[in-house]
Amino acid sequence: MWQREGGRRAVGARLVRLLLALAAVATESAAGIPRRYTPDWPSLDSRPLPGWFDEAKFGVFVHWGVFSVPAWGSEWFWWHWQGERLPQYQRFMRDNYPPGFSYADFGPQFTARFFDPDRWADLFLAAGAKYVVLTTKHHEGFTNWPSPVSWNWNSKDVGPHRDLVGELGAAVRKRNIRYGLYHSLLEWFHPLYLLDKKNGFKTQHFVSAKTMPELYDLVNSYKPDLIWSDGEWECPDTYWNSTSFLSWLYNDSPVKDEVVVNDRWGQNCSCHHGGYYNCQDKYSPHSLPDHKWEMCTSVDRMSWGYRRDMTMSAIASEFEIISELVQTVSLGGNYLLNIGPTKDGLIVPIFQERLLAVGSWLQVNGEAIYASRPWREQYEKNTTSVWYTSKESAVYAIFLHWPDNGVLVLTYPITSSTTKVTMLGIEGELKWTTEYSVGLLISLPQLPPSALPVKFAWTVKLTDVK
Amino acid sequence: MWQREGGRRAVGARLVRLLLALAAVATESAAGIPRRYTPDWPSLDSRPLPGWFDEAKFGVFVHWGVFSVPAWGSEWFWWHWQGERLPQYQRFMRDNYPPGFSYADFGPQFTARFFDPDRWADLFLAAGAKYVVLTTKHHEGFTNWPSPVSWNWNSKDVGPHRDLVGELGAAVRKRNIRYGLYHSLLEWFHPLYLLDKKNGFKTQHFVSAKTMPELYDLVNSYKPDLIWSDGEWECPDTYWNSTSFLSWLYNDSPVKDEVVVNDRWGQNCSCHHGGYYNCQDKYSPHSLPDHKWEMCTSVDRMSWGYRRDMTMSAIASEFEIISELVQTVSLGGNYLLNIGPTKDGLIVPIFQERLLAVGSWLQVNGEAIYASRPWREQYEKNTTSVWYTSKESAVYAIFLHWPDNGVLVLTYPITSSTTKVTMLGIEGELKWTTEYSVGLLISLPQLPPSALPVKFAWTVKLTDVK
Amino acid sequence: MWQREGGRRAVGARLVRLLLALAAVATESAAGIPRRYTPDWPSLDSRPLPGWFDEAKFGVFVHWGVFSVPAWGSEWFWWHWQGERLPQYQRFMRDNYPPGFSYADFGPQFTARFFDPDRWADLFLAAGAKYVVLTTKHHEGFTNWPSPVSWNWNSKDVGPHRDLVGELGAAVRKRNIRYGLYHSLLEWFHPLYLLDKKNGFKTQHFVSAKTMPELYDLVNSYKPDLIWSDGEWECPDTYWNSTSFLSWLYNDSPVKDEVVVNDRWGQNCSCHHGGYYNCQDKYSPHSLPDHKWEMCTSVDRMSWGYRRDMTMSAIASEFEIISELVQTVSLGGNYLLNIGPTKDGLIVPIFQERLLAVGSWLQVNGEAIYASRPWREQYEKNTTSVWYTSKESAVYAIFLHWPDNGVLVLTYPITSSTTKVTMLGIEGELKWTTEYSVGLLISLPQLPPSALPVKFAWTVKLTDVK
Amino acid sequence: MWQREGGRRAVGARLVRLLLALAAVATESAAGIPRRYTPDWPSLDSRPLPGWFDEAKFGVFVHWGVFSVPAWGSEWFWWHWQGERLPQYQRFMRDNYPPGFSYADFGPQFTARFFDPDRWADLFLAAGAKYVVLTTKHHEGFTNWPSPVSWNWNSKDVGPHRDLVGELGAAVRKRNIRYGLYHSLLEWFHPLYLLDKKNGFKTQHFVSAKTMPELYDLVNSYKPDLIWSDGEWECPDTYWNSTSFLSWLYNDSPVKDEVVVNDRWGQNCSCHHGGYYNCQDKYSPHSLPDHKWEMCTSVDRMSWGYRRDMTMSAIASEFEIISELVQTVSLGGNYLLNIGPTKDGLIVPIFQERLLAVGSWLQVNGEAIYASRPWREQYEKNTTSVWYTSKESAVYAIFLHWPDNGVLVLTYPITSSTTKVTMLGIEGELKWTTEYSVGLLISLPQLPPSALPVKFAWTVKLTDVK
Repeated sequence: MWQREGGRRAVGARLVRLLLALAAVATESAAGIPRRYTPDWPSLDSRPLPGWFDEAKFGVFVHWGVFSVPAWGSEWFWWHWQGERLPQYQRFMRDNYPPGFSYADFGPQFTARFFDPDRWADLFLAAGAKYVVLTTKHHEGFTNWPSPVSWNWNSKDVGPHRDLVGELGAAVRKRNIRYGLYHSLLEWFHPLYLLDKKNGFKTQHFVSAKTMPELYDLVNSYKPDLIWSDGEWECPDTYWNSTSFLSWLYNDSPVKDEVVVNDRWGQNCSCHHGGYYNCQDKYSPHSLPDHKWEMCTSVDRMSWGYRRDMTMSAIASEFEIISELVQTVSLGGNYLLNIGPTKDGLIVPIFQERLLAVGSWLQVNGEAIYASRPWREQYEKNTTSVWYTSKESAVYAIFLHWPDNGVLVLTYPITSSTTKVTMLGIEGELKWTTEYSVGLLISLPQLPPSALPVKFAWTVKLTDVK
Repeated sequence: MWQREGGRRAVGARLVRLLLALAAVATESAAGIPRRYTPDWPSLDSRPLPGWFDEAKFGVFVHWGVFSVPAWGSEWFWWHWQGERLPQYQRFMRDNYPPGFSYADFGPQFTARFFDPDRWADLFLAAGAKYVVLTTKHHEGFTNWPSPVSWNWNSKDVGPHRDLVGELGAAVRKRNIRYGLYHSLLEWFHPLYLLDKKNGFKTQHFVSAKTMPELYDLVNSYKPDLIWSDGEWECPDTYWNSTSFLSWLYNDSPVKDEVVVNDRWGQNCSCHHGGYYNCQDKYSPHSLPDHKWEMCTSVDRMSWGYRRDMTMSAIASEFEIISELVQTVSLGGNYLLNIGPTKDGLIVPIFQERLLAVGSWLQVNGEAIYASRPWREQYEKNTTSVWYTSKESAVYAIFLHWPDNGVLVLTYPITSSTTKVTMLGIEGELKWTTEYSVGLLISLPQLPPSALPVKFAWTVKLTDVK
Repeated sequence: MWQREGGRRAVGARLVRLLLALAAVATESAAGIPRRYTPDWPSLDSRPLPGWFDEAKFGVFVHWGVFSVPAWGSEWFWWHWQGERLPQYQRFMRDNYPPGFSYADFGPQFTARFFDPDRWADLFLAAGAKYVVLTTKHHEGFTNWPSPVSWNWNSKDVGPHRDLVGELGAAVRKRNIRYGLYHSLLEWFHPLYLLDKKNGFKTQHFVSAKTMPELYDLVNSYKPDLIWSDGEWECPDTYWNSTSFLSWLYNDSPVKDEVVVNDRWGQNCSCHHGGYYNCQDKYSPHSLPDHKWEMCTSVDRMSWGYRRDMTMSAIASEFEIISELVQTVSLGGNYLLNIGPTKDGLIVPIFQERLLAVGSWLQVNGEAIYASRPWREQYEKNTTSVWYTSKESAVYAIFLHWPDNGVLVLTYPITSSTTKVTMLGIEGELKWTTEYSVGLLISLPQLPPSALPVKFAWTVKLTDVK
Repeated sequence: MWQREGGRRAVGARLVRLLLALAAVATESAAGIPRRYTPDWPSLDSRPLPGWFDEAKFGVFVHWGVFSVPAWGSEWFWWHWQGERLPQYQRFMRDNYPPGFSYADFGPQFTARFFDPDRWADLFLAAGAKYVVLTTKHHEGFTNWPSPVSWNWNSKDVGPHRDLVGELGAAVRKRNIRYGLYHSLLEWFHPLYLLDKKNGFKTQHFVSAKTMPELYDLVNSYKPDLIWSDGEWECPDTYWNSTSFLSWLYNDSPVKDEVVVNDRWGQNCSCHHGGYYNCQDKYSPHSLPDHKWEMCTSVDRMSWGYRRDMTMSAIASEFEIISELVQTVSLGGNYLLNIGPTKDGLIVPIFQERLLAVGSWLQVNGEAIYASRPWREQYEKNTTSVWYTSKESAVYAIFLHWPDNGVLVLTYPITSSTTKVTMLGIEGELKWTTEYSVGLLISLPQLPPSALPVKFAWTVKLTDVK
């Protein structure tokens, strides 16, 4: 039962739980049979990744916060404006706001007025997403839930006056979609963080007053399936107390069995420690990694948060998105595709359209994606337009472009007499033959454009091949 | 030289011009050789339509005004709220604004902050539009130019503080796109209009104080190629003084040679009098009309003005849009496709995408559209998926769906020995034959999806057919 | 019955009345016995001033409008900012508002939220005011009533969403206070006014479209006891059609018997034509004029409209105000004291305090003021600290300062054996004697400060003197 | 050197100082000769009150915060609205703000735009104030300085974007006025405070995270002469750690020698422990207390914070204020008179006027007030209209009302042959005599009203009396 009690009155109870949890970390005895993790990377890294994550393959990422109010440039608006003081951001503020307007002054305009979590969740379901990750707090520090240690800088006290994290979670889970929480460790301008930074991160005022209370609160209150950590890059994991938190998360938290985390828990953790790996943003390897990974990217190539000045030239095309999804899954990754809702809680049509396009494609080709595993080869020789996945006895070859002559040539699969070839979305078997030193030749069906099961990235399924 | 002088100082000069023009109507002598029109329908209807309009075929319609601020429901927001008092509009206001908030209070929020007319015009050019029609004033009465008789309820005094009509005109003409002005005769809540209405339209206080001064001002100031009249439906043309205005427009205005108007000049004018015919909104005839017409429609099927709550289910697909364009041109009409910019002057990506899709299609098939004429048949026997146009000796058959067997059958064209068949966007001739009691059979090329010149609605061009 | 019908629906009816009235001017026959005035100054100037005005002596002036929103500098804010472009106003706007903010954008912030007309009227009653004059429209052109020719620039459509003129009138009259309407003929930035100005006031577009319809509407709708005209100074009365309006007002309007007007009806009218004279603002003659006049002044010496930046140094003291009142009445004038309410409809305490101070003083000394007449002398020889008024057989000497020796010396009154001397607010008669070549010597009572009837400006009443 | 470094960059440095100070409390050795206080009431209460405070007598209190934005009801707005949920506050919000508007949403409107600390300080100087106390943080928790533990809920991040505490301090001290800081221990709605409350104040999360860091920061940053503690009433001093703070303040803080505090440090402290006593708000004893005390009161009798709806009936008159001042000083107290500035940083004229009236009175009578001591009697027998103070050999009798017969009778002073009697503000000695069983009879001078040195509350000075 993860549902939150509403409103201010519940805060006390939550804090009690929070403090009990913190106490528990210290005092709990090594209870029973289940293996316990110690707060060090060798132990934590040895934990097997809960199975649901690898099977999910496709998730939707949602960047939403006070940055959705200026909705200009990107979700790094505050930093560009007052951290780096970029001239175009200075000018934007000068041109559009009275002198002295501060970032916090944007808060009341983040109304989320039309936010209908069920509508969002319906869209994510139609997109074929198996998990959804929401920014609970970005580097700006504004929390999308009523954090007890972020008074008057959270979505209950200011702006929406709602528990955004809680509401979306309820809607998403009603549809059997897993729910992940993005959480930024650092906050650019939090005075305690700035103090610790000044002290060369020898002090941990910020971690004990803000980061850890909030992380524990998030876990206890919303019981996330996934924690998508970020904002770790300026300090070692020892500053963040990451291993301590993770050992609690794995041993004693209410989500200890199912929760998945990524790898952003301190400088040098990325691509080395934690749960699955994100490595850098939009990371995409060229060969099969030996560790579960996830590619996160955004429909708007220039921003994760909503920006009003977005133009078509920055929007990923359906083809690009599907191609990335295919390639990612083929290489063993998950694909986490981001959209940024508006300050009034709407997902603009272009994002709806892209998500629905993924959904349509998966409707036909999902068999080759969900719960699939990388095959022994990832892509065809000398090309990146044919990608392999596998599941049980089947091998799937997904080809991004239709061959001019209507014959798909596959070098790697070794056929047998019982080999069958079909195309997902099409009735009947395809004719095939083999040719020495060339491989398998598959005669694709002659279809008028409207009869094609999808517009690009078609899947042939091979059974009884090696 | 149609460029406007900027700012308040120019108002006097404009009014002088305006009054001179009004005077001219009365005093001008029948000058020279050019034929003069008298202020009656038989005379006005006899004027030949300037040629550019029929050749243009495709235009972009832009609905922009104070209704873009609530951006909810549709551009009829004010009427639904305070005219009809629909419950959902009452609730919307109650939920989102303090008590007593009025429609006029929206004015200052219509900032047009990011309005870049050159960027809009680039988009319209890329869409293949040959004309652009902007709402200079919708039924709300707010003028998008500094009208001297709409003080403090125009875009110079309130909100944008810019001459939107002038700025867009300059940008559009720089690209050789024709510029049309939408103008609503009525204003729902103007006190003088309400007075005239109460008087059974026996008085014309509103017409003489508002409508006519503004129409003359628009023509003199912006020299439009097209006047897209609207809001005529509650009164006869005699109330509006339409024939008087049109006779001035045709005889003595600075645009007398090139200007085109539509048919909304009074009750019963629609589909009967004026320039070309719009008949009702989104009108689409089933056979070739004997009068030039235009179909206007909107990418957002539910609204002409921008509304934040738009969802994909209401957005016309690319296929629907192209199909409408083809059918319209085939039946002798022009196609005017509407988008609604936001209050801050942006055209959201989904609208960009749709317009650019039309542009891409026209890039290949424009030859069959621009300056084409209806052929002797408009569409193939027993189907509405093949449409004809013609130009000089060529006949174009545009087929919306690719035939399953790759053979396009055309019943109507009569071939000869010199007949040639090609497909726009494809090199080389197509093979064809004829079959008795069937007609012309064209073998379409075998193309992989990516080699298709467009995704749907392909054009075969026939020469030397009858 | 002067009460207004509420809301938009009444507009038509009002316009009908308005137009009927305009028609009536032209067509009415010289009906009965009552004398009729012709539209020329000799005739109009010959009209006797209705008696109530001279008897009233003290009124309250109220400057309220959109200028109450910036509430900075003065009610001439707009002119200083965008007419004269004074640097400090430019800076004020730059420092406090986003670029491009216009004067009209202030409109929605003029909420009048706490405006309680009965509370105002109670205060004016307690101040001893016999009439109240409200700005119905200042030079900014915003009308404080739903003018049918000032659409979306009036208090019903924008800001208060109330009929301020009507509501205050109802409250004031309930208390038997006369109601006057301030009305500015000119509007600094009205485009039609600017046009007429450009034409050297040879045209009257503005007068016929705005000024006259509004003046007639005000009279018909609110039946004012007084019209306080202003904004006349740039043009002759012939431009304004003043004599035509006044002849209608005096002959045929619903207030023809009781209405009083001032003298601002065109260049050179001031101090020469009209009803009573204001001459310039804050005008104060040094000897008795031969024409009824009124001194208007403001508690805030620097502004008529409310300004937030007001400091005590600019506030008239109670002594200054009472002294001016005394001097004015002594010289045959009326005293119209101004206060400026805030944008939310409140009268700030310092203004309450000053008005109540006048009320307290009049409570004691009103006998010497209301319905009094100038005496044969206005003030004592060689001093301006003793002022005379008279009523029937009584002469009143009001002395601003208490004589050091407790003896008030009056040169002018000629006593007789029956002469009695008393002090208003004090029981019993005062001892007096006369001294050759000096005059009347009055022994003032020996009173501790708290026993004084008022703090300054005490009145001795003389009966049976000449 | 108490001046603050500006801006965000200084935060780190301040926190470093803060933490060093906290550390110092623990580690400091009992250094030298100066007496050290232990953290218990017997020790702390034994500290002598620094002399400046008793000599100051008159101070100005300033209530300013986010409550100045709604400016309605009182500075307890938030509590009445959302704590007690009073119907009139519910209605106020419903009538004036959109649904869902929160108290935090008021923050950005607290602009302090016209705040000119030098102008305020000039006014306080002219009022004769010897100290000024500003609310640094009221029960709402908003800090008027950039508190490092009140992120985005302080005057630097939100609203004014200025360090109000620092700026006013600089201006006040430039004029040799002492500077006191009001600080509320509790914060109605702080989640950590609510948690501690729920725990029966057994936990101190709020104290260690918010109260104490801020109190130390205030002392170190602004070096106050006075700490005016408040908001203590729900918990014992042990919850607040008050004695620990005070022992640091007295032993080791940068203001240890001069700082004065009041008595609000925990339940039951009031009137029993701490520095001087406030006891309850507006407390006024009837006989001479044996402990230094201060009466705080407000010009607006109904509110400490600015409220727009203030009327004259709630404004203390000049007489009331002077009378309170006299009585308070006579009884050994200090008089702290409050005004509430507006959200844009202005002190409205009625408050200016009252403060200046005190200043005028003190200009004449200050000798009897500043640095005076209570005499052996405080007021005359059977009356509260004559009050005594003394200084060195002089005794001052301040009489609020002028005796009807011009003779002031004093029962208590025992005259001698060298006794002299004068009146402050008047040249020369007064005649006096004594009468058996009556006492001293002083003949007051016969003065016309304008020659009186003040309007009420005159002082006779007696030398050589017992």
